[in-house]
Amino acid sequence: MGYAYQLRPDDIRDLALGAAVLGTGGGGDPYIGMLMALQALERGKKIEVVSLDHAGDNDLVIPVAGMGTPTVMIEKIPNGREALYALKLLESHYGKQVDYITPIEEGGINSTIPLVVAAERDKPVLDGDGMGRAFPELQMVTFHLVGVKATPMAMADEKGNAVLLDTVDNYWAEKIARVVTVRMGGTAWIAIYPMTGRKYREGAVNRSITYAIEIGRTLREAKKMGANPIDALLDITRGYLLFEGKIVDVARYNIGGFARGEARLEGLDSFRGKSMIVKFQNENLVARVNGEVVASVPDLIVILDKETVRPITTERLRYGLRVIVVGIPCDPKWRTPKGLETVGPRYFGYDIDYVPIEEKAGRKVM
Amino acid sequence: MGYAYQLRPDDIRDLALGAAVLGTGGGGDPYIGMLMALQALERGKKIEVVSLDHAGDNDLVIPVAGMGTPTVMIEKIPNGREALYALKLLESHYGKQVDYITPIEEGGINSTIPLVVAAERDKPVLDGDGMGRAFPELQMVTFHLVGVKATPMAMADEKGNAVLLDTVDNYWAEKIARVVTVRMGGTAWIAIYPMTGRKYREGAVNRSITYAIEIGRTLREAKKMGANPIDALLDITRGYLLFEGKIVDVARYNIGGFARGEARLEGLDSFRGKSMIVKFQNENLVARVNGEVVASVPDLIVILDKETVRPITTERLRYGLRVIVVGIPCDPKWRTPKGLETVGPRYFGYDIDYVPIEEKAGRKVM
Repeated sequence: MGYAYQLRPDDIRDLALGAAVLGTGGGGDPYIGMLMALQALERGKKIEVVSLDHAGDNDLVIPVAGMGTPTVMIEKIPNGREALYALKLLESHYGKQVDYITPIEEGGINSTIPLVVAAERDKPVLDGDGMGRAFPELQMVTFHLVGVKATPMAMADEKGNAVLLDTVDNYWAEKIARVVTVRMGGTAWIAIYPMTGRKYREGAVNRSITYAIEIGRTLREAKKMGANPIDALLDITRGYLLFEGKIVDVARYNIGGFARGEARLEGLDSFRGKSMIVKFQNENLVARVNGEVVASVPDLIVILDKETVRPITTERLRYGLRVIVVGIPCDPKWRTPKGLETVGPRYFGYDIDYVPIEEKAGRKVM
Repeated sequence: MGYAYQLRPDDIRDLALGAAVLGTGGGGDPYIGMLMALQALERGKKIEVVSLDHAGDNDLVIPVAGMGTPTVMIEKIPNGREALYALKLLESHYGKQVDYITPIEEGGINSTIPLVVAAERDKPVLDGDGMGRAFPELQMVTFHLVGVKATPMAMADEKGNAVLLDTVDNYWAEKIARVVTVRMGGTAWIAIYPMTGRKYREGAVNRSITYAIEIGRTLREAKKMGANPIDALLDITRGYLLFEGKIVDVARYNIGGFARGEARLEGLDSFRGKSMIVKFQNENLVARVNGEVVASVPDLIVILDKETVRPITTERLRYGLRVIVVGIPCDPKWRTPKGLETVGPRYFGYDIDYVPIEEKAGRKVM
């Protein structure tokens, strides 16, 4: 049952690509985090991914991540020390060293930053995360669903400012950490949801690092072998083709530390004559075709560049891009009443009921 | 040289009144803090005020205070536990118990809150503060002038949220703590500028608690004896009568966690035909008569109700009030180049040079 393996450079490249898919437009550009992880390997560091059963009941597990607007992160490149510093601060507050590092989300830069921290600290990485995708707010993790507290949590910026939070609930952690992040310049680095190995095994989305690597590898190999990479992607993710078209308009505005907005697409090929609107808040939230919802959170909505078959983050959406939109079922933990209350469409302000994508799409379209 | 005395209920009442004068319109309503301190005495607690020479070189001194918009504090009455909790948090981060409590400012509620905390914790209060008046921002303390760091600092709200800050400088402490305060609902309770007894003696404005009590007592006794309380006030503070008039307009707006605005006055009696404008940001900052500056920060501008001869906080300024405006020289520590850089009119955005009130007013007008 249990497994453990060391990441090779190709695994990290595949992971970055796979996590960009699972990032559903958010989580920031995985490229920088990928380079940092590759550099760690080049410096002789090891990154070991281990199955969840490795974590002892009382071991200390700490997720580390970047927080803030990905739009800002493009301009404000992290140096990798901030996340380490946040972790150190939390450990020192706890009076205990971390036993396992783990991602909080499997999306974008937050899939690779924990690897860099783990490499520097010579700690294993647990093969799970708190979302199985990316989400924009701190309480939107499966750990929250099983009662793990986000705090004590530590935050650090690149200037050397550090903040430690202890809040009455995880929504207050989000509220306060968000304004601090904005004040810090739009991005911050956090160590959050410190928990026991037992709670982690109960709450985590299992095997998500390995899953992201498999997605990346599948896309890479399909391209190499001249196969249709979208077919391969739908296959491995049990996903659905939702749309194919051209971006004809992107509206965006940074409010309260988020990159919000919407993209309008006009159909091509078999979707000619149809139009799609995708709403996003860091991540893609709701996709409508001709006004009808075809997918919504917590299911994954992934926009890929038709030419390169690489996922496009919401901050890089732009007029004229030809794209393919794919829907992927979310982890079952999100489909519980508390899961949907936490990350369903109504939480994000959309007056629609969640319908699992399998029921909406009915069948694979391709 | 050294002295120590226990506060009696009348001392606390006088202190609240005197601190309202020194609060120059800011620091919030001292009434609540006064009641809390009186209640502590009624419960049998002691509040001991001691001279600065009591503090040993390596003793730990911690100022405690409320932070935020006084306008909000009127609606959101503190229960006294928040400041205690902030102090406890800072002590636990420090790994050391506090030896002496002290006010950060001698103005409004922040002159009495430290007394309540000291009573609960059975610690003496050092007879000084970091301003000798009230100011709106965290770095505006004389401790800052001698290089004391605002952080580590602890913040708490009435809901139970707590934040610990460690920033690269005191301006960053202000910036981050301010957004946290706003998010916490407009007010927060803080323990800040932890320092040694040696640094405190070097940096503090000396004897400011006793001074506030003397001001309050002077006003009270003058009223009781039928003397002119304004004359008595000018006497004990070496102050100047700046204006007498009626408030004809108050503009205010809460921006970034501050109560900003201005009051316009029309002259009465010997000031008839003249008009005054007082600009404020929590505290009164600049007073102009017929366009000419008659007083500015760091000197104190105090607006008193003509009828009751009680100071009026900026949030209680309103049309129709008949008022007397008094100017009082600030502590000499503020008149140094670094002092003026920190709290001079230019820091607040006014393009005027600071001129000591003695040079401006020239003589006592009454």
